[in-house]
Amino acid sequence: MADLDRDPRLLPFYPLLYLAWADGELSEREADLIRQHVEAAGLGPEPLEGWLDPERPPSPAKLLGLLSSVRRLASELDRPDHETLTDLGVGIARAGGHDPDDAERAAVAGLEAALAVDVGEGAAAMLPEERPVAELPEIRPAFDVDGMTVWLDGDKHEIRARVRALIGSPPFESPGEIASSDYRELVLDWCRRLADEGLGALATPEEFGGGGDPGGFVAAFETLALFDISLLTKFGVQFGLFGGSVLQLGTRRHHERYLRTIGSLDLPGCFAMSESGHGSNVADIRTTATFDPATDEFEIHTPRVRARKDWIGNAAAHGRLATVFAQLKTNAEQHGVHAFLVPIRGANGTVAQGVRIEDCGYKLGLNGIDNGRISFDRVRIPRENLLDRFATVDADGAYSSPIASQGKRFFTMLGTLVGGRVAVGSAAVSASQVALATAIRYGARRRQFGAPGEPERILLDYPSHQRRLMPRLARTYALQFAMHDLQRRYADPDEERRPIEADAAGLKAVATWHATDTIQAAREACGGQGYLAGNRFAALKADSDVFTTYEGDNTVLLQLVAKDLLTGFRREFGDVSGLARLFVDRARVAVTERNPIITRRSSEEHLRDPDFHGAILAARAEELVLSLARRVKSRVDDGKDGFEALVDCQIHALAAARAHVESHVLDRIVAAEHGAPSSSLAEMLERLRSLYALRTIETARGWYLEQGYLDAPKSKAIRDLVIRLCAEIRPQAVPLVDAFAIPESCLGEIAR
Amino acid sequence: MADLDRDPRLLPFYPLLYLAWADGELSEREADLIRQHVEAAGLGPEPLEGWLDPERPPSPAKLLGLLSSVRRLASELDRPDHETLTDLGVGIARAGGHDPDDAERAAVAGLEAALAVDVGEGAAAMLPEERPVAELPEIRPAFDVDGMTVWLDGDKHEIRARVRALIGSPPFESPGEIASSDYRELVLDWCRRLADEGLGALATPEEFGGGGDPGGFVAAFETLALFDISLLTKFGVQFGLFGGSVLQLGTRRHHERYLRTIGSLDLPGCFAMSESGHGSNVADIRTTATFDPATDEFEIHTPRVRARKDWIGNAAAHGRLATVFAQLKTNAEQHGVHAFLVPIRGANGTVAQGVRIEDCGYKLGLNGIDNGRISFDRVRIPRENLLDRFATVDADGAYSSPIASQGKRFFTMLGTLVGGRVAVGSAAVSASQVALATAIRYGARRRQFGAPGEPERILLDYPSHQRRLMPRLARTYALQFAMHDLQRRYADPDEERRPIEADAAGLKAVATWHATDTIQAAREACGGQGYLAGNRFAALKADSDVFTTYEGDNTVLLQLVAKDLLTGFRREFGDVSGLARLFVDRARVAVTERNPIITRRSSEEHLRDPDFHGAILAARAEELVLSLARRVKSRVDDGKDGFEALVDCQIHALAAARAHVESHVLDRIVAAEHGAPSSSLAEMLERLRSLYALRTIETARGWYLEQGYLDAPKSKAIRDLVIRLCAEIRPQAVPLVDAFAIPESCLGEIAR
Repeated sequence: MADLDRDPRLLPFYPLLYLAWADGELSEREADLIRQHVEAAGLGPEPLEGWLDPERPPSPAKLLGLLSSVRRLASELDRPDHETLTDLGVGIARAGGHDPDDAERAAVAGLEAALAVDVGEGAAAMLPEERPVAELPEIRPAFDVDGMTVWLDGDKHEIRARVRALIGSPPFESPGEIASSDYRELVLDWCRRLADEGLGALATPEEFGGGGDPGGFVAAFETLALFDISLLTKFGVQFGLFGGSVLQLGTRRHHERYLRTIGSLDLPGCFAMSESGHGSNVADIRTTATFDPATDEFEIHTPRVRARKDWIGNAAAHGRLATVFAQLKTNAEQHGVHAFLVPIRGANGTVAQGVRIEDCGYKLGLNGIDNGRISFDRVRIPRENLLDRFATVDADGAYSSPIASQGKRFFTMLGTLVGGRVAVGSAAVSASQVALATAIRYGARRRQFGAPGEPERILLDYPSHQRRLMPRLARTYALQFAMHDLQRRYADPDEERRPIEADAAGLKAVATWHATDTIQAAREACGGQGYLAGNRFAALKADSDVFTTYEGDNTVLLQLVAKDLLTGFRREFGDVSGLARLFVDRARVAVTERNPIITRRSSEEHLRDPDFHGAILAARAEELVLSLARRVKSRVDDGKDGFEALVDCQIHALAAARAHVESHVLDRIVAAEHGAPSSSLAEMLERLRSLYALRTIETARGWYLEQGYLDAPKSKAIRDLVIRLCAEIRPQAVPLVDAFAIPESCLGEIAR
Repeated sequence: MADLDRDPRLLPFYPLLYLAWADGELSEREADLIRQHVEAAGLGPEPLEGWLDPERPPSPAKLLGLLSSVRRLASELDRPDHETLTDLGVGIARAGGHDPDDAERAAVAGLEAALAVDVGEGAAAMLPEERPVAELPEIRPAFDVDGMTVWLDGDKHEIRARVRALIGSPPFESPGEIASSDYRELVLDWCRRLADEGLGALATPEEFGGGGDPGGFVAAFETLALFDISLLTKFGVQFGLFGGSVLQLGTRRHHERYLRTIGSLDLPGCFAMSESGHGSNVADIRTTATFDPATDEFEIHTPRVRARKDWIGNAAAHGRLATVFAQLKTNAEQHGVHAFLVPIRGANGTVAQGVRIEDCGYKLGLNGIDNGRISFDRVRIPRENLLDRFATVDADGAYSSPIASQGKRFFTMLGTLVGGRVAVGSAAVSASQVALATAIRYGARRRQFGAPGEPERILLDYPSHQRRLMPRLARTYALQFAMHDLQRRYADPDEERRPIEADAAGLKAVATWHATDTIQAAREACGGQGYLAGNRFAALKADSDVFTTYEGDNTVLLQLVAKDLLTGFRREFGDVSGLARLFVDRARVAVTERNPIITRRSSEEHLRDPDFHGAILAARAEELVLSLARRVKSRVDDGKDGFEALVDCQIHALAAARAHVESHVLDRIVAAEHGAPSSSLAEMLERLRSLYALRTIETARGWYLEQGYLDAPKSKAIRDLVIRLCAEIRPQAVPLVDAFAIPESCLGEIAR
């Protein structure tokens, strides 16, 4: 083997020669390239003897010696230029006493170009300097961040801002590791402070000492989710569910007697609906309330273990009165589920006679809530404890109701409690915001990996990182506008209730699944840091997890939405014979929507057009309901009952419901855009709306391609645009999460 | 308004009349239908006067009266037949003293049929009896469950069975709510018991008192994940990472001195690689190890806060010696990352001089692990504490290594630690199994909702419930076979290492994301029950969450896979000019795979054909690598460096890597099928493999449709078959999870 240093004209080739061998393998082709270029520099093959045989590589010691030579010579240079390997080679050659001429330089550069793809490590790897450190780029909001906050907050800006200030101040501080028993008392204390601030009674009519502002109550609830979901839940159980049931299902005498002490938290209470055997299917609960005319009392009874009330918040420790749902029986006749007020503890905390309470014990999350199980052993309550807005029983036990149908009465009663679903869906958006704000602020600061010799790259500048967070940011904005619109309608007594109930069910399901998904993605985006309790994901993940289950299991809720769509469908098109008419209508519509010219349009302008987004999302929602109706009908025609027919089509029903909600959310964000307070805010929302819509379409593109709504090039154009939109939104990502106005103390420590 | 009871011939119409009005709305059409059929029964219109005017509905009291009449008459019957509303009507008419003739009966039946779709509530809703209760159907395994366990276990059946027996016995019991400090000691105690059983030293060569069975060690680790992931992690840190680093990176003198006491847990230790500033990008860590020839020592130093070792398991409380990764400097030259043994605590637990240890504090999960942060203030260690398998420093400070390239040396060192990724991927499969077994057993028992008058339906008989759990069950089986194949190759010294490293990275990412997804889906499938700590999801969710981050962040790992695929691609096709040749090859292949006849075949036989599955999953994997190579090349041609070019194509790189892993997993399950020990086991695996493959294709169908591998009817046929396969597997779902042989005490309480 030749000693390389016998000919200084080889010096400029050192870096390339080392790197070509560094992985221990040199191909024949690479060896040839080196030979050619060395010869082009006017050198013969001799000096490289033993260095270019793929079968017999130089020893590691030889290679390390070569590397040491490069480093030694480079260290003699003031600041070695290593932009390219040619620059480095020329530099060390000079340090070694040989100044390459133009031909030699060209030969080295030619070799570097020829080997380019095959040489993995760059010049920087040969000169193991510390990477340069770079400042973080300044973030310049392209819009008025405070203005965005006010816009997002909508007509309840004031109450939201008040609650944010409150939870951002002591004593509202996350406790870290804490025993459940202590946590429950801490949450009770927090809850008292909220009651003292008048927040608990916000929805209570003013004549009973409240704020008369149900919309404000939901806004306050939503905002609490930025801080602690145990507190949120305690607040919701006491004031929303327990207080709400007395207000909505009771009548004046109940209001007069209870609403003030409920709102002040002097009377802690429970909402006892679920049973061990029946969580979702509440119509089939088994607790009984049998009227006894002899004593003018109802007897509340748990006939079997599976009929015990289960998961009841406030039951295990603090509750004194409970709204209990039970099957009303009078004069030997059953009238279905009604609500009754049943004392479960005395003022001193002793459990009432005939009542048995177990603690549900340690849970996945929400360990600040004292969930319990309640059984009743023939507990007697006065007749007036029936919450009698929708049905009364007179002293003789005669039953009367303004609603004859048991089923309709039941759903009317449940309908008055729709606020719970509006509130939980809204809280899910808040939880998503905390997770995103933490991950995005962290991602905008943290660097990891980088090109050799360059500063490490900011995490949020990686496309995969943007792809994780930007579409979820867009969806969070979209859901926020949709939820606030729903809150407004919920609080407006002139709005029709039925669509509100359906939207509340659908948005609750979609928003809570979004929260689960977003919190997980954000936690993973923070790597190991995401695992520390101080960075908030621990509590967010564990506590918000229950959102998908409580106030209605999401799968059950989406089926309600689907049933409602089928009913609406039937109302619009009459009985099943109307289907034929519908097909004609659809065929006409389909001609427009599947127009090949539209199917193939893929200009960016078209792909960002709200009309395109609206039409294509609505088309999917409608088409899926239509096909669901057809499928259900064909099963009913085959003799199945309605329940079985719908169960058979469950997968389609869920898809139809989800598509409907996604289309509805798009409509809400488009409507918001039309009312944008400034052009810069409208511009931001345009990007978010486009990303929301296109990512939704991309996710469903299998269906769109199957149905002929997209052709392949358009589908690919949408995929590419999603990636580009992520990059387009990225520079404004921090201001966009700043606009959520989350108190610093509610963010993860890595984001403060 | 007429009194209905003036004509007993109206009695058989009562149920229909009530239900037609029950929702408070009657359409003109419905009113006409009723009139027609009442007339067909030979009655005039008079008796119904006031009952058929859509504008003026009967009062609720009237309707409740009608309902009471039906119920009163029905109660006089022995067991009223209410299969249909006609049966019920005829029955109550008889009880009321009128026996309808054939014409009347036909008229009632005709009306019921005509109103069918519009009448929501059935006869059962009118007679509020308790639902009938039904026994659970017997579960008959269609295959040998024990045989399946043995097959799944593979050649490490014995050790797996031993570990299962151990964790299924006291004192291995989940502690429920427990303070971190107590939990850490409990986990240490458990870990000692495992060491006493010889499990800790399983991978240690026999000459140092071990089992000489690295494959057995991974199998034991995998099995521990059925019980407690803190224990799993402690076990992995001590014996896998700390012990493994001494074994793999050290030489004989280190082995002789340390391996026995590590395996017995008499020397608890740490694996200190990650730093606060560098978790994923380990090559850029900043801890230094500078050789001082004057004293023959290395000086270990933490030059800045972000260079402290972070997240180090065993550091905060128990560890005494640590394998510390640091940048080796000698004679003013840097040689990259090397591993050193550094004492951090004395035998009495006192922290060593110059060492500073902080506790990471409370975490999302894994609170049985004492994670800590370690900083070094110029700590001196003897020269022999360099783990010197891949590099030595002599007394003069001269550095030598059998691997000249710093990058290659680094990856070779990391490569020897590949067992960690194999183990974590395997543990993720175990965690998925516990979640699925709990949810599937519960879902096979729990009933909720049902057709009126019918027993409630078993959860697992709902298509949506099947769809949640069956595809994840199939994927869990597929991943189990793939992981066990990888474990076998990992333990076989004759197998080529590089593909093992790439497969370990890819499978770890895919399996751990699968676990996160599956545990969440299983938890939601258990509703409120899923939220109770006793049902295991709390611990599973929180503890397994870290799987996606540790032993390599999943996104980073998939990028490694993509880079490896690009390298393999280059090896196969030479330099970039080979691309042209490749295009020709691909064009030829594409003709076959995109053959319209295949694209359109949608018979069930074809859709379940393993050749179809293999070809279509492989085509996607290959096509995506090809397009990735093209994209990277075009950016390099435009002058970007390799790092930037790959970052630009990151989204595609991740898709290509994932597709590659999915195709690889399919190949493993198909290979397993070929070696099935019996036809009934092969048959079960066929269903699971088909569901795995088709669900994977369904998820990627947007891409397949775009590329012309599927036409729309075939894509829809695949969707339908996925739903049917879920139903086909459902009756065997419980035996299939029983075959995981999870100790009862490791399952959720609802599943025992």
